[in-house]
Order: sequence, then structure tokens, then C-alpha cells
Amino acid sequence: MPAMTQPERARVFRELHRGPRILVLPNAWDVASARVFEDAGFPAIATTSAGVTTVFGYPDGQYINPALMWDMVRRIAQAVAVPVTADVEAGYDDPVQTALALMEAGAIGMNLEDLESGHESTLTDLPKQVEEIRRIRSETNLVINARTDTFLASIGDPATRFDSAVQRLNAYREAGADCLFAPGVRDAETIGRLVQAVQGPLNILAVAGTPPVPELQRLGVARVTVGSGPMRATLGLTRRIAQELASAGTFSSMTEGAISYADVNAMLQRKPA
Amino acid sequence: MPAMTQPERARVFRELHRGPRILVLPNAWDVASARVFEDAGFPAIATTSAGVTTVFGYPDGQYINPALMWDMVRRIAQAVAVPVTADVEAGYDDPVQTALALMEAGAIGMNLEDLESGHESTLTDLPKQVEEIRRIRSETNLVINARTDTFLASIGDPATRFDSAVQRLNAYREAGADCLFAPGVRDAETIGRLVQAVQGPLNILAVAGTPPVPELQRLGVARVTVGSGPMRATLGLTRRIAQELASAGTFSSMTEGAISYADVNAMLQRKPA
Repeated sequence: MPAMTQPERARVFRELHRGPRILVLPNAWDVASARVFEDAGFPAIATTSAGVTTVFGYPDGQYINPALMWDMVRRIAQAVAVPVTADVEAGYDDPVQTALALMEAGAIGMNLEDLESGHESTLTDLPKQVEEIRRIRSETNLVINARTDTFLASIGDPATRFDSAVQRLNAYREAGADCLFAPGVRDAETIGRLVQAVQGPLNILAVAGTPPVPELQRLGVARVTVGSGPMRATLGLTRRIAQELASAGTFSSMTEGAISYADVNAMLQRKPA
Repeated sequence: MPAMTQPERARVFRELHRGPRILVLPNAWDVASARVFEDAGFPAIATTSAGVTTVFGYPDGQYINPALMWDMVRRIAQAVAVPVTADVEAGYDDPVQTALALMEAGAIGMNLEDLESGHESTLTDLPKQVEEIRRIRSETNLVINARTDTFLASIGDPATRFDSAVQRLNAYREAGADCLFAPGVRDAETIGRLVQAVQGPLNILAVAGTPPVPELQRLGVARVTVGSGPMRATLGLTRRIAQELASAGTFSSMTEGAISYADVNAMLQRKPA
């Protein structure tokens, strides 16, 4: 099978948000994790910006040199046969330039947060965010996953938070977003209300306590992602390996369940389709 | 405490090979793993070239662009307060230039394999390898960890393999290597004989079945490293997370034992000493 072109991949990926089954996307942080996810059979792969930044030593929050982020997205997109959608914090200095860089890197989708760059609890002005989405829509064919940080950053009065988030998400949809992302919501009741209230496919971030995928599908969620969760789990394992090595001086948390050296090498030698 | 200079770090690291306790070094593959290892209290950190190459999507065996390898070594060296020694496959095109690049990147030590570049079962000519080590010794203050692939690649007649490896390692020591690395040896009896036969500190690679650190210390081993083991363990966990997500649609292998988002960010925001 010849490799799909970028427009074909984007079309396939967009359709996955409208299929009979919920779209489950694992989030990769380097090429090796992307290849492991591809081998597990997922129809597409997302990246996690919080994961990629840790690889290079930056905290989350737009500190990384964006060129490093594009480069990792490009490496991942070139290494796997399935479509790759990129998580790129709040889009860095110019979200439209970021979108064009992602197209050039071979990605077919893009997440865009609405947290003000450098702030932990301030959202971007809604008209400004809407205009960014409109421009990305007009200048690229990327599958835009427009995110509001309203819930995750606990912004505003809890009594009006839901309505405020819905207002933002629907404005993003109107501006051309393909999917609406509301991380920080994890109770089934609120997820169900959100599915009804937003005028487009809804993306939920899975964390501890999130209903399992079959229940999310029943609630009408279109897409579920895992953010930096898998990367942070691997850091937890790294810590347990370190502690065992430093204390008992044994190696079982390192050797049990590892992928063999030969299998890792074979995985990386295989050419993408 | 002000940061140590490169010569001070190299001196401290060299002395750790002569201390009363065995030197245990974890091998990092990116900045996040290096920070986790540093937090666990190790006095120094090694890198794993097989790990760094997987981050960028290359198999092991001198396929990576060396500039990517130096860049990751530099990022790790800048991110941690402890000395960092770099694993750099067979030194790429010119091991002396590689050594100088590592110095410039802030590393204080270097591993050098003796597998012929691009071959799986051919060692470099011994006089050539000795000359490379001699030149690195004369042009840098790096703590040189000279490795023979004799055991790991099962090279030569098993009846003479031990003597052949010892001949190589002692030639490397004579040429100025600080430590002698014999991956692929894991039975206590052979390790003990090797400690006696080589004329310098011995580095053993811990894999499944290697005696625990206290026994390696009792046998007289100077240094133990873990190579790509921890990185491959995290890929194993990544695969289990992927399989759980793709089958049951649940998240427990991702959420149990993970480091929190806040803790990861705090770890990367902290400045090195």
C-alpha cells in the first residue's frame, strides 16, 4: 500500500471523528513511543506537548524552542504510517505559523489551547482565539482540535464555568474547529451534558477516575486522548527502577516486562508504510 | 554550592571508580529520565546511546546524526548537577572528534565500543582501537570507559573468548582507558575471573540474571551500568498502557504509579546546582 498523502490522511482522520466508534488516540512523546502505539493498532496517533517538552528538559507552558517541537512531530509523522495530530501548547508566538509548520512537518491535526501564554489561570480573549482558529481554518486543512482550559485550570465562578466553557467551545466550532476539547472534565454526568451542549465532536482527556472508553462512547464522546499520562507513567517506572537499583541493588523492575533490545531495534529498523 | 567545573567533575567521577563502594550508574535517554535518576541520589549519570537513538527514531548501530546525540548529552549535562558520562556507540566517524564534542557538551566521560561500525560481529583492529584511545587520552580529560564487544556479540571461539577479551581490555588500559567495560558477561564466576585478569577498574552491564549490586561489589567490580534496560522497560510499560487502552478501554496501567503532572513540571522547573 503506497503511503497516503497529507490531504488523504487529514480526510481519513477527520472521518474518524464521525465514525460509529469513539476515536481513541494515544499520545506519543518521542519516536519510540509512537512506534509502540502504532504497533498496538491505533488508527491515528496524537502527540503530547507536555511529553515532548520533558524529553528536551522544558516544563510545560510554552518554554520549549518551537523548532524542537516541530522536529519531533516531523520525526514521529515520518516514522508511522497512520495520521499524526500534534499537541502544541497554546500555539507559541503565532498559532497560524505553528499550524503551517505542522503541515510542513507532515501532521494532519493540531490542538490549540486557550490559556494565555505564560499564565496559569487566564484565558485568551475569546475574539482573539476565534480569529486564530478562523485563520488556521482558512490557511490549512488541519483537523483543528480547539481546547478550552476553563475546566482544567478551574477558571471563573464554578456556577457559571460550564456555560462559559460551552460558549467558548461553540465559538471555536463556529470559527471552523473540527473537534472541541474539554480537559479537566471527568464525571459522567458533566461529560454527558457537555456532549449535548456543544455543537461538534467532543474530546475528553482520560485521567484517573475518567469513565472507561465504552462508557465515554455511550455518553456520545467522539474522541478520547490521554495527554501526558503514559509519559508520566513511564517516569514513575523509571523512578521505581532507580530506587530498586539504589537500595537493594537488584534489577527486576527494569527487566520484568521490558521490550527486548532486539525487538526495539527491529521496531525502529522497520520502514513506515 | 557553586557548580563544579568540567575538570572538577571529571576528577570526582574518576575517583568514584576507586572508592570503597561500587559505582552504580543509571543510564538516561532524555532529560526527564536524567532528572528522575538524579533525584534518586546517584552520584553521577550515564547516558545510553541505544536509548537516545530510539527517542529520535534510529536503531542502534551508528545510524543517528551525531549532532543529535551531542545535543541530548548537552541538555542532560546542563540539567543535572552531577557528572554525566556519555555512551556514544563506536564513536561515529572520528572518535577523537566525538570526544572533543562531548567535552564541549559538558560530559566528563565517554564509552567507546570496539565493534566495527556497521557490523554486528566484527571487532575493530586492535592497534587501531588502541590508537583511538591513546589520542582521546592525550586530547581530553574524559574518563574513558573502553568497551569490548567480544562477549556481547559472541565473537570468536568460546574457548579463547575470555583471553581475547582480556587482551583487548588490558591493551585499552595501557593506552589510557580509566575503566574497562565488558558487557555480555553475567555469571559470577566469569565476572570474578575478569576482575582478576584485567589491569584496571571493571564495568559490568546489569541485565536479567546479573548478580545483584552487593554481589558485584564483593566480586570486585568497580562500576555497574544498566544500558538501555530502563528505557526498554518504559517501552514495555507503554505497550501495556496501549494494550489496555485499546482492549478494555481503561487507564489503570497509565494512572497507577505515574508521577503527577505538577511534580513533573516542578522537576523540570528546578534549576541544576
